[in-house]
Amino acid sequence: MKAIAYEGTGRLRTMSVDATPPGPGELQIAVAYCGLCGTDLHIAHGDMDARVRTPLVFGHESSGTVAAVGSEVEGWAPGDPLTVMPLLWDGTCAACLAGHQHICQNLTFVGIDAPGALQQLWNVPATIAVPLPAGLDLRTAALVEPVAVAVHDVRRSELQIGDRVVVLGGGPIGVLIACVARHAGADVLVAEIDESRRELIAALGIDVLDPAAADLGAEVERRTNGTGADVVFEVSGAAAAARSATSLAKVRGTIVVVAIHAAAREIDLQRVFWRELRLLGARVYQRSDFERAIQLLHQGVIPGAELISGVVALEETATAVKDLSAGRGMKILVDVAGGDRA
Amino acid sequence: MKAIAYEGTGRLRTMSVDATPPGPGELQIAVAYCGLCGTDLHIAHGDMDARVRTPLVFGHESSGTVAAVGSEVEGWAPGDPLTVMPLLWDGTCAACLAGHQHICQNLTFVGIDAPGALQQLWNVPATIAVPLPAGLDLRTAALVEPVAVAVHDVRRSELQIGDRVVVLGGGPIGVLIACVARHAGADVLVAEIDESRRELIAALGIDVLDPAAADLGAEVERRTNGTGADVVFEVSGAAAAARSATSLAKVRGTIVVVAIHAAAREIDLQRVFWRELRLLGARVYQRSDFERAIQLLHQGVIPGAELISGVVALEETATAVKDLSAGRGMKILVDVAGGDRA
Repeated sequence: MKAIAYEGTGRLRTMSVDATPPGPGELQIAVAYCGLCGTDLHIAHGDMDARVRTPLVFGHESSGTVAAVGSEVEGWAPGDPLTVMPLLWDGTCAACLAGHQHICQNLTFVGIDAPGALQQLWNVPATIAVPLPAGLDLRTAALVEPVAVAVHDVRRSELQIGDRVVVLGGGPIGVLIACVARHAGADVLVAEIDESRRELIAALGIDVLDPAAADLGAEVERRTNGTGADVVFEVSGAAAAARSATSLAKVRGTIVVVAIHAAAREIDLQRVFWRELRLLGARVYQRSDFERAIQLLHQGVIPGAELISGVVALEETATAVKDLSAGRGMKILVDVAGGDRA
Repeated sequence: MKAIAYEGTGRLRTMSVDATPPGPGELQIAVAYCGLCGTDLHIAHGDMDARVRTPLVFGHESSGTVAAVGSEVEGWAPGDPLTVMPLLWDGTCAACLAGHQHICQNLTFVGIDAPGALQQLWNVPATIAVPLPAGLDLRTAALVEPVAVAVHDVRRSELQIGDRVVVLGGGPIGVLIACVARHAGADVLVAEIDESRRELIAALGIDVLDPAAADLGAEVERRTNGTGADVVFEVSGAAAAARSATSLAKVRGTIVVVAIHAAAREIDLQRVFWRELRLLGARVYQRSDFERAIQLLHQGVIPGAELISGVVALEETATAVKDLSAGRGMKILVDVAGGDRA
C-alpha cells in the first residue's frame, strides 16, 4: 500500500509499504479521503520537528471504511463507513480524572504523535473509530474533524440564540465556526483579510469584511447598537486580532481563543477587568462534538461541497501543501485510495 | 464641617464648608471612618486628572451613622449605622438591562465621579446606603467595601471546596481575597514581594512566599502534585505576574484579573488554548457581595483589626497617602468625625 511520510527538515515522500493486519482491539481502515489542515502544513514545513518522530505518516481528518476487524473488537464489520477521532488519552492524569480527557496532560494526537491517515490501510484502536451514517458521502465525511473543532468552540462559548458573534479569521475553522454559530441562532460577522476567502464566505450568505480596509470596531458598534459583541472567536493567530478581540466584546462578553499563537500576545487586561470579560481557551473536541459534527454534515447544515476547494491524488500531497501554504484554496482533500479504490 | 478635597495636579486640601441638608431621596451621613485605597492614591497623585472634576472630595470606603433623613426616604432613622455601596448606574444601558448594573456602561463611582466620604456630613442617595448590624464597630465597618471586592472576586471565580488557589499580590485586596477564599474552603498561597506584608499574611495563618526569591511555579507544582492551581487571582498589576498566571493554572483552570493593568500585558495565549484556561475580569461588586462582606466582618471571618495598620485624623490624610504610597502599612483609615464626633 502507499503512504505519505514526513521525513524531517521539510521533506515529504510517497512510500510503498506492506500493510500490517490489525492488532487486538484495532480496526484496519481503508482510508478514502484525508483533509489537510494548518497543523499538517506546520509538520510539512518542519515547524514541529521538535515534537514529531520521523518518518511520520501524518493526516488526521479522515474518512474511510473498515477493511479488517482485529480480535477483541465488537460492533464493526468490513465495509462499515467511519471516521476517526484522533485523540488518545492516558485516562489517569488530573485532567482526565476531572473529565477533560480531550485535553489530557499526556495526550497523544494521532497523525502527529502517532501514525495518521495518509496511508491506504491504517490500523487504529477501535475506541477512536466513529461510525458514519448511511448516505453521508466519504468526501464530506473527511470534514468531520474540523467541524468537530467548530462545534467544540461554539459549545465552549456558551453562545445563546440571537447573540452577536465576530469571527476573527475566515480560514477553514473560522468559516466552520461561523456556520455552526449561525445554525445556533447567532448573528455572525467574519473578519478576513484574504479576498478569495471573503468571496467564498459571502457566497455562503455570511457577512464578512476586510479588517485591513474596513473599521471592524465601528462595524461591530453599529451592528450591536454600541453594546459590543456577545462572543468573539479569535481564529486568526494574528497579534493584532488578539489585541482587538477585547475591544470588540460587550460587558461580560466572551472571547474564545481558538488559534495557536506562537508568541505571547499583548492583551488589554484593563479592558478584561473593566468589562468583566471572559477569555476561554478551546482545543480539539469531545466525543459528543464529533457526533454532532457528523449530524451537522449529514443534515447539510455545513456546506461541505462549497468548502472543499480541491481533491488531489496521494502523490500530489506535497503540491497541495504548497498551494495551501500560499493561501490557495480553503480545504483540500487527499484522495488516499485513488486508483487503488476497491 | 470639614472635608478633604483633591484640587488637581497632586494637591490635597482640608476645607471648611457649610453642610447642605439632604435632598429628596437622600440620607445625610455623619461619616465615622473612611479607608484609603489604591484608587485614592492614584487620584491624589494626579494619575486620574483626566477623569475627575476638581475640587473632588474623594473616599469610598466608608462607615457612619444617619445624621438626617431627606424627604421621600423610608426605613431609615437618625443614628442608624450604615455604609455606602458607592455605585450609581443608569439602569438603561445594555449592561444594566442584562443584569450587570455594577459594571454599567455609564457607571458613576461615588468618590471618583461624584463627591465621596472624606467629609463629615455626606449626602448620598438612600438607595446606595447599606445598613450595618448592631455590634459591628464602625472602624471594622470601613472595610466593608474592599471586603465586598474580595467576595465578588471569589464568587466570580466559582471556586469550589478544596480548590488550590494562588493569589498574586498580597496588598489589602489580595489578603482579603485570601481570607475569603480560605473561608470558602480553599487551600491558599499568596505571592508577595514586600517583606512586611508577607509577615502580616503569615501571622494570619496564610501561606505566603516571595516570588522574587522562591520559585513560585515549582511550589505550585509541589502543592498541587503537578496539576496546577484551580484558581489564580492576579491582584498585583505587575507584568511578570500577568505573564506567570497562565503557567500556574491547571487544565481548565481559572485566572481572575482583579488588578488594574495600566498597559497591555503579554499573555501566553498558547497556554490558554492548550489547557483550555478561563480568564475572567472581576470589577467592584454587586449588592449581594456588599451584604456578604458585612456578614463576614460581623462574624469575625475577616480579621479587620489586624488589617488596619493605622487610623489618622482628617487633616492627616495627605500624610497617610504618602505613607501608603511608600508601601508603609496595609490599610489606613481616616477618622473623619475626629474631635467633631457627636
